[in-house]
Amino acid sequence: MSAKMAKERNISLAGEILRQRFGERFQTGASIREQHAHTLTYLAGQPPDAVVFAHSADDIALIVQVCAEHSCPVIPFGAGSSLEGQLNAPLGGVSIDVSQMNQVIEVHPEDLTVTVQPGITRKALNVYLRDTGLFFPIDPGADASLGGMASTRASGTNAVRYGTMKDNVLGLRAVMADGREINTASRAKKTSAGYDLTRLLVGSEGTLGVITELTLKLHGVPESIVGGICHFPSIAAACDAAIQTIQYGIPIARIELLDAVQIRACNAYSKLDLAEKPTMFIEFHGTESSTQEQSVQFGEIVNDCGGSDFQWTADEAERNKLWQARHDSYWAARGLRPSADAVVTDACVPISRLAQCVEETCADIEQSRLIAPIVGHVGDGNFHTLVLVDLENETELAQAKAFAGRLSDRAIAMGGTCTGEHGIGQGKKAYLRDELGDSVDFMMMIKNALDPDNIMNPGKIF
Amino acid sequence: MSAKMAKERNISLAGEILRQRFGERFQTGASIREQHAHTLTYLAGQPPDAVVFAHSADDIALIVQVCAEHSCPVIPFGAGSSLEGQLNAPLGGVSIDVSQMNQVIEVHPEDLTVTVQPGITRKALNVYLRDTGLFFPIDPGADASLGGMASTRASGTNAVRYGTMKDNVLGLRAVMADGREINTASRAKKTSAGYDLTRLLVGSEGTLGVITELTLKLHGVPESIVGGICHFPSIAAACDAAIQTIQYGIPIARIELLDAVQIRACNAYSKLDLAEKPTMFIEFHGTESSTQEQSVQFGEIVNDCGGSDFQWTADEAERNKLWQARHDSYWAARGLRPSADAVVTDACVPISRLAQCVEETCADIEQSRLIAPIVGHVGDGNFHTLVLVDLENETELAQAKAFAGRLSDRAIAMGGTCTGEHGIGQGKKAYLRDELGDSVDFMMMIKNALDPDNIMNPGKIF
Repeated sequence: MSAKMAKERNISLAGEILRQRFGERFQTGASIREQHAHTLTYLAGQPPDAVVFAHSADDIALIVQVCAEHSCPVIPFGAGSSLEGQLNAPLGGVSIDVSQMNQVIEVHPEDLTVTVQPGITRKALNVYLRDTGLFFPIDPGADASLGGMASTRASGTNAVRYGTMKDNVLGLRAVMADGREINTASRAKKTSAGYDLTRLLVGSEGTLGVITELTLKLHGVPESIVGGICHFPSIAAACDAAIQTIQYGIPIARIELLDAVQIRACNAYSKLDLAEKPTMFIEFHGTESSTQEQSVQFGEIVNDCGGSDFQWTADEAERNKLWQARHDSYWAARGLRPSADAVVTDACVPISRLAQCVEETCADIEQSRLIAPIVGHVGDGNFHTLVLVDLENETELAQAKAFAGRLSDRAIAMGGTCTGEHGIGQGKKAYLRDELGDSVDFMMMIKNALDPDNIMNPGKIF
Repeated sequence: MSAKMAKERNISLAGEILRQRFGERFQTGASIREQHAHTLTYLAGQPPDAVVFAHSADDIALIVQVCAEHSCPVIPFGAGSSLEGQLNAPLGGVSIDVSQMNQVIEVHPEDLTVTVQPGITRKALNVYLRDTGLFFPIDPGADASLGGMASTRASGTNAVRYGTMKDNVLGLRAVMADGREINTASRAKKTSAGYDLTRLLVGSEGTLGVITELTLKLHGVPESIVGGICHFPSIAAACDAAIQTIQYGIPIARIELLDAVQIRACNAYSKLDLAEKPTMFIEFHGTESSTQEQSVQFGEIVNDCGGSDFQWTADEAERNKLWQARHDSYWAARGLRPSADAVVTDACVPISRLAQCVEETCADIEQSRLIAPIVGHVGDGNFHTLVLVDLENETELAQAKAFAGRLSDRAIAMGGTCTGEHGIGQGKKAYLRDELGDSVDFMMMIKNALDPDNIMNPGKIF
């Protein structure tokens, strides 16, 4: 029997045991398997052999134990919104769907913490928290699951003020490759107790363990939220405004850049009539006096950079309409070429290099004749392009990938990273070593030590 | 030849090679060796066999390579201010003194980052930064080295506002057990590129690698700094004021509690005449209007909790005198019983449990008839007692250790940690598993994978 056949037999044996144990919650139908491997991007879906819908940490531990006995890969699945192929099953195996583990376990408003199951989405969590005066700020756009957000070290629009998932996961529980569930940290706000397994698991993309529970930091809903919008004559001018805002230490809560192409897409998709210019969406959080102070300071920077008058409003409905458009920018951009697929990029550079990096990228887009709108969490030096490609056209796909590669190279050469928030997954593996060199060897030593049979989401990161 | 003899012979061989290579920078004199193993606490010093003064990352790589070939332990040494025996050499070996690697490598004011050698101290760094309008906020009291602060995941008085070393180290370089130097991260503000080796090394107490360089986040010197002091009728009332301050989301920069015994000690040591009551030292950072707003809000909380009028000042000299007294509190407390040694504790609990934890600890001190002043970074739920013990008196030492054990148990039972900022070292090993259970097994797997011969600061954490 070949190694491949032996592997298939093992996976099949694990499946039989799981089918007996989980009944209807064990599924092997083609459409369910395909749903669990969709990638939202140009990466081809690689469906798992089966999907199990987990209801508890004990379920997850049992699944991992059975799979470990049979060297069968496990792939955790939350909301399915990752962008670098993290959900694919290149070696087959079992997708552990935690979307039904979507409960809040306990809120400690007095400690500003909440403990949740991994399948709850960020929007559902914030609906739950509505009456507490608290909220969870991390907002990657998609209504992602908290387990998935932790696994990819997600961030998004609010990160410039509130940090990323690395900063907002206080501790977590995870089932490791040997089937044991561990608790990585106490609920204390800070600790020096041993290795920081919390932050080792955050961003590990399911390759070290399956998250079964998370304790998150919460923040008080600001007394005053003021939002606004302004236009700039050029991308460079907009980047300069972002750079100055950060350098002056204005505690801005959101500072998002959309280029003219993206604004055109948003106008069409979200029924807006914004000027088709490089545009910034802004938000300030604080007391009434501090948000007013911040708005005035920011307005001065915008003027200095040649931007339009900064229009701001405290009206919630108006603000929400703008931010919904921002969050729908992925779908809006796809609407520019509905039949196409997307090559998504995710560069992040030290903010001093932001204007140069974005400008060179714009020039590259133009020279490469790509349709590739730009959106960016520019306060963090992080931006994305979404290159629309016809997958049937090999030349076009190759051009888009080459462009994405040049952007990774450019960001790395500027002291930045090939991924600010999407993760490495399958799509960025080639760049990880360019960025971090021999560090990757030590990551692999950790992977091999904690998952010697390589069953935890294999084929990702490395 | 016994294993012990073989080990000694190996260490001796490594020493010979290092002596040839480093000449005068290789030292084996008793007093230098003892200085490199002082513990500032009851823990007995365990001197290394030799000390090498490193001048560069290449020096460190060479030392580690030579030591790795001979299975000779290496113990990194910065300023020597750790409190849990992290500098001891229980298995002998070579202390790598990095105190002469104390240069700033580059400042990027526009990115709010600085890259430094590991031996620079926090005060020296801030002197260097004086003209940039920026500062590095982490302040553990002692003038510790940045490498040491990273290694123990230090924090201190400003952490309530600016976070701990885990939040302020953007990336680092370290020589690993095989002698290779790695770079853990780019200079981008955020990243999702692979495992978070930065935060794995931060807090690893030299057991995984020797830090050779750190890139740190800087913060703008606040336009306005306002500080003050207030007294409370009881420890519980003071803790309640801290709890409310955090829950109301006041972005306080420092909120330090000293009990009446500690105030008595500070009055004597720092020539002050503060009322001998539970006392809070406070600081606000922001714009003039925001610090004023915060001061007023805080003053109301103090009143509600029965505290004295909150006296505040923007005068720098007055503020500095108070904070110097706070930072000297360790030496002030030792002055209460000059011939004694110290058993230092370091509990941290969710802030909702702070008042109860501190009160029960006070009752325990009283019942145990110990001299043990309390100081705390109470905004983080973190506090210390310093139990003064006569090491000649075994009963007394046993009582102090038992008290410290009960405090760890109490903090853990309340969902907290046995160490908020000092680390595990030698002193807290017994509590790590109580706190984190099977997680410790996975920490050990990482340790074994990255340092299979256990040469990196052996005998610490595990």
